[in-house]
Amino acid sequence: MRPIITAFKQSPDRGRGLARDTRIRWAFEEVNQSYDVRLVTFSDLKDSAHLALNPFGQIPTYENEGLSLFESGAIILHIAENHIGLLPKDANARMRAIMWMFAALNSVEPSILEFANAKILESDKPWSQERIPLVVDRVRSRLEKLSAHLGHADWLENEFSAGDLMMVSVLLRLKSSGILDEFPNLAAYVARGEARPAYKRAFDAQLAVFTSNSPVDDRK
Amino acid sequence: MRPIITAFKQSPDRGRGLARDTRIRWAFEEVNQSYDVRLVTFSDLKDSAHLALNPFGQIPTYENEGLSLFESGAIILHIAENHIGLLPKDANARMRAIMWMFAALNSVEPSILEFANAKILESDKPWSQERIPLVVDRVRSRLEKLSAHLGHADWLENEFSAGDLMMVSVLLRLKSSGILDEFPNLAAYVARGEARPAYKRAFDAQLAVFTSNSPVDDRK
Repeated sequence: MRPIITAFKQSPDRGRGLARDTRIRWAFEEVNQSYDVRLVTFSDLKDSAHLALNPFGQIPTYENEGLSLFESGAIILHIAENHIGLLPKDANARMRAIMWMFAALNSVEPSILEFANAKILESDKPWSQERIPLVVDRVRSRLEKLSAHLGHADWLENEFSAGDLMMVSVLLRLKSSGILDEFPNLAAYVARGEARPAYKRAFDAQLAVFTSNSPVDDRK
Repeated sequence: MRPIITAFKQSPDRGRGLARDTRIRWAFEEVNQSYDVRLVTFSDLKDSAHLALNPFGQIPTYENEGLSLFESGAIILHIAENHIGLLPKDANARMRAIMWMFAALNSVEPSILEFANAKILESDKPWSQERIPLVVDRVRSRLEKLSAHLGHADWLENEFSAGDLMMVSVLLRLKSSGILDEFPNLAAYVARGEARPAYKRAFDAQLAVFTSNSPVDDRK
């Protein structure tokens, strides 16, 4: 039985790997688990069939052997719990790795989501230019603390884990903003994640979907 | 061995139970696990001793038997995995409950955090009045979907779980805003959580800390 995930037929990030299916693909690649992908359009997300899988109408979803899941954190935890390679065996070290997944999703990503909202949803508002630096400062405040914790280490704990997979995935959203470059150790940490063969395969897979589903005359 | 958590000596929410130690206290109460609390001041949060427990300089933290954790999601998952009462035994049902913890923290709470930032950090900005309705609409958009999913059910899945504990805890932050009242089934869901004896004990415990550490002549 191969698990099935959903992903955008035409990702709004234009193949930059920032949609959340990339995280799941990366997890599958780290543990050498093949998977199938059902591509969905924006309109599909509002269908009752999709809402039954994810009430918030988003991708990715996961289906396998009678279990359906949404939330990239839950899907990656499920993959990590059922394969070798993403969580340490030692019980305490395992819990610390899971803790970093939560930290990525609840202590770091919310500030990045707010920054994305400011740039995308409020770009036409009269306050946009004056407000964005405040929002960036909130992102910076979290990155300062993460950077201080990481120091010269390669990964958040002793070895690469699902916690790093999630933290790198969250930080990747900042790549085009330049904020990450203010923290050389975090920029290097993200580059270390991107250099993993499993990440590269995941990135290429999502890019192939975007490329093969884009209009030929798309010049944007 | 009793686990030790950290909580604010004087919670900025003035004992309304919205600081994140309440979630942990609630989880402990649901599984009948006694615990100790180390109270910290805002200044303590910046000390290297606290930053070693939580690099983001926040409460709560958890320490027990050689394991230290931060992130309320990770702490509650750890409690739930090691006691009976917060996760179903069936593997698929267990994963669905954990999924709702992630949904609370990453699909619902970020919009509520953005709303809190708008109200607290940007209340003095010239755009504040015009912008808040946009931010409320983002909260509302998530609640609409959650409300549609919950329908007439008591809990998110068949039985109360750590997923409900986390979702109710996240939604409680909206209680004073009035937004929750637009969704009667969600307001009733939150009230159902608050009515649990374990929640009441947790709420009373955090309130007792605030009351006993407040200046006597505090008339606000």
